[in-house]
Amino acid sequence: MASRPWVLIAGLGKAAGLGAASAQLFAKSGYNIALLSRGRHALEGFAQDLRTQSGVEVASFATRSYKPQDLKDAMDNIWPSLKSDAEGGIRAAIWNTGFAIFKPFLSTTPEEVNQSLMLNTEAAFMFSRECLLQFQNNSVDLETGKKGTLIFTGATAATRGSAFTSVFSATKSANRALSQSLAKEFGKEGIHVAHALIDGRIQRDDAEEFGLKPESIAKAYLNLVKQERSAWTWELDLRPANERW
Amino acid sequence: MASRPWVLIAGLGKAAGLGAASAQLFAKSGYNIALLSRGRHALEGFAQDLRTQSGVEVASFATRSYKPQDLKDAMDNIWPSLKSDAEGGIRAAIWNTGFAIFKPFLSTTPEEVNQSLMLNTEAAFMFSRECLLQFQNNSVDLETGKKGTLIFTGATAATRGSAFTSVFSATKSANRALSQSLAKEFGKEGIHVAHALIDGRIQRDDAEEFGLKPESIAKAYLNLVKQERSAWTWELDLRPANERW
Amino acid sequence: MASRPWVLIAGLGKAAGLGAASAQLFAKSGYNIALLSRGRHALEGFAQDLRTQSGVEVASFATRSYKPQDLKDAMDNIWPSLKSDAEGGIRAAIWNTGFAIFKPFLSTTPEEVNQSLMLNTEAAFMFSRECLLQFQNNSVDLETGKKGTLIFTGATAATRGSAFTSVFSATKSANRALSQSLAKEFGKEGIHVAHALIDGRIQRDDAEEFGLKPESIAKAYLNLVKQERSAWTWELDLRPANERW
Amino acid sequence: MASRPWVLIAGLGKAAGLGAASAQLFAKSGYNIALLSRGRHALEGFAQDLRTQSGVEVASFATRSYKPQDLKDAMDNIWPSLKSDAEGGIRAAIWNTGFAIFKPFLSTTPEEVNQSLMLNTEAAFMFSRECLLQFQNNSVDLETGKKGTLIFTGATAATRGSAFTSVFSATKSANRALSQSLAKEFGKEGIHVAHALIDGRIQRDDAEEFGLKPESIAKAYLNLVKQERSAWTWELDLRPANERW
Repeated sequence: MASRPWVLIAGLGKAAGLGAASAQLFAKSGYNIALLSRGRHALEGFAQDLRTQSGVEVASFATRSYKPQDLKDAMDNIWPSLKSDAEGGIRAAIWNTGFAIFKPFLSTTPEEVNQSLMLNTEAAFMFSRECLLQFQNNSVDLETGKKGTLIFTGATAATRGSAFTSVFSATKSANRALSQSLAKEFGKEGIHVAHALIDGRIQRDDAEEFGLKPESIAKAYLNLVKQERSAWTWELDLRPANERW
Repeated sequence: MASRPWVLIAGLGKAAGLGAASAQLFAKSGYNIALLSRGRHALEGFAQDLRTQSGVEVASFATRSYKPQDLKDAMDNIWPSLKSDAEGGIRAAIWNTGFAIFKPFLSTTPEEVNQSLMLNTEAAFMFSRECLLQFQNNSVDLETGKKGTLIFTGATAATRGSAFTSVFSATKSANRALSQSLAKEFGKEGIHVAHALIDGRIQRDDAEEFGLKPESIAKAYLNLVKQERSAWTWELDLRPANERW
Repeated sequence: MASRPWVLIAGLGKAAGLGAASAQLFAKSGYNIALLSRGRHALEGFAQDLRTQSGVEVASFATRSYKPQDLKDAMDNIWPSLKSDAEGGIRAAIWNTGFAIFKPFLSTTPEEVNQSLMLNTEAAFMFSRECLLQFQNNSVDLETGKKGTLIFTGATAATRGSAFTSVFSATKSANRALSQSLAKEFGKEGIHVAHALIDGRIQRDDAEEFGLKPESIAKAYLNLVKQERSAWTWELDLRPANERW
Repeated sequence: MASRPWVLIAGLGKAAGLGAASAQLFAKSGYNIALLSRGRHALEGFAQDLRTQSGVEVASFATRSYKPQDLKDAMDNIWPSLKSDAEGGIRAAIWNTGFAIFKPFLSTTPEEVNQSLMLNTEAAFMFSRECLLQFQNNSVDLETGKKGTLIFTGATAATRGSAFTSVFSATKSANRALSQSLAKEFGKEGIHVAHALIDGRIQRDDAEEFGLKPESIAKAYLNLVKQERSAWTWELDLRPANERW
């Protein structure tokens, strides 16, 4: 049996969120799924359902938190458990977590600044590091000419600070800069790094009329992963047709 | 037999260029193709080949030049000839032409400035106008929730001026601003406007090692056309993995 | 008597506008003033008043329009008339004119697109060309290390297109790209090119509470002209403290 | 005797650096100077010299490090010691410190990421917080209409990530977003927040031919502090005339 490649998705969110939609779409497209998230119970429930529905392998890894060391510990468990099963290797990773905070600057405590920088940005550095080290071990995929794809879920706040978004914009801007540095540094090795500017609220429920559907974002992510090395996208924006911007 | 939608591609370029690659990919994906270009002979030769290969309808429209009035005259011929055949209507349009000029500012003549503004920017306004008027007549596509997609082929020069690119950057920046205005104004009507920042040289020959393959860019364009209205991209960049940027 | 340097201000606007305020501030700071504007009557009245008040030389040049050729014709008259009086030479130029238009895209006529591109952008290319050719003849100023300063009055619309601003944003974006190209190309010759993003309405009357005071913008322009060659600004934004942005 | 306003400068650097040049220029322009820096010995030597030369009050405050808590402790000492002397109050603050690091991403240790985020960004949040709380207590200055000005020394890396700049770009981008959020949130209270994009190397020695002179940057900072509330700059770039960019 031919081996499927793996995608690692960090940040499952609600079962109706972007992490879950990405997992479902990538499973349907022939990827094995590794999930990294807090909340072991929900994580394992989702993993079990997806395994049953999709027929692909689904591995779940709980992390106590997104503190860099906790994240590193959780990721240390991931790689060995994929290797035995997957000659396809880990071919894509999606950073899809974040600590959103919107409040007047002077109401934001130094502790919140510290936590936000740690959980949003320092954690993204750690996640990137661990994924890049794995991708470097991969062979070049014949179809796409790449060793791996790392996608950051960003936000419009990554391109500008607004009143009451100081901490959130700072961390999202930092991650955007990180993603651009990595895209430039690792492109020539065949590792593709991309950044999605999500401009609008993500729907939590299919019945909602406004907002971005998680499935539509997941399609954009799958397209990024499939891009051939002759034309890679570092950044794209995504917003609903009727969003005012 | 179900009617196929049409895509209009302005700027065929060489048969190995982006216009041609877009035509081939959209034909393979079930679109009828309308081509608008200068050089009637090459245009009709390409159209005939594509018709034979692909089995879709291919209509070719020569324009004397991209001067706004010539362009308008050529486009006035397009719409009636599509209507009889295509209940699918014109669903996508790609602006893929441009007058590139790179020289010291003081060596650039006022006449070259005038021509470049007219052929790159004033023409893009005219093309947009004519396409938008057509899209407004379309019904909303059930799958994507959209009436039409208008794509501009842009360049990195659209985001910054460099030494010796004054005219080219000015016109590309103008078109980028145009595309963003249109994306904002027409999104709520179900018309999707997108801008691709091509960062690098487009290959003219499959044997080339560096540069962007036209086929890879065309795939990105097809993905834009397929985006559902809950998550539209206005802008994305495209560059080769090994490009320094 | 030591010779004063000249500043050329294109676009006088109302006597209470930015052109007028710049003229007054530069006159007070020891510059002779050359004014280029439409409307000979208002222009000469203003020039006469300024001459009387300030004691500097004030030369006024009417242009029939900002069409490139009319502008060129008017500028051909400027240089010889300054030379006899001013060994200081023409040291600064401010492009402070523009054709603003805000309307739905499909209500904007092709003629308006054409006029706007010509009067805003093609004219700015011509103005730049003529000023740069003059600056190149200057000696390097000992205090600032520069031969001349060219300032563009831009707008926030130069950095993004919004609904209903397609033409205005396109021309302002083009001029911004032009200014950046020129800044890069001519910096090493000692010619400083700058672009001001005016973000907000300029007050027409001192009694107004909101908006930017023309005098405050003029101060920023004077500071740009005085910048020494070790630290030049290409772009700065200017907005009222209470502007929402 | 009329009371002079104070400016607080964080990050003295070398005696020939930007912190020192800012102190000298603001002293010459009638400000009392509060200096916050590491390295008590150099700090006090510089302060003593400046006091003697300029005749203004110069207060120096050593901090053990730029760790947020150390910084907060140092700043807690500043305010009371200024109050008794200065009815002019603290009117300007310059954040002029940073931990630069340029190396391949995978050679950057998680510890370096942590330190850089803490010393560059978390510290800037703390500094901003403490300064804004002071500014809020000030009366509105009659001449400028403002309560205070907070300036961030940024870098081109704040607007883009490049290969080998991941950590530095991330922290500088974060600070840029912070400064923009603060500019938007506190503008209406009469507090002006600005961000300078230093594009090039700052000279360490007057004999150097290339690079930015600290004195020239300091002039731009003084101009920002003097800007009237009708036309404030959030961001400006500064680079040498002969810089390639």
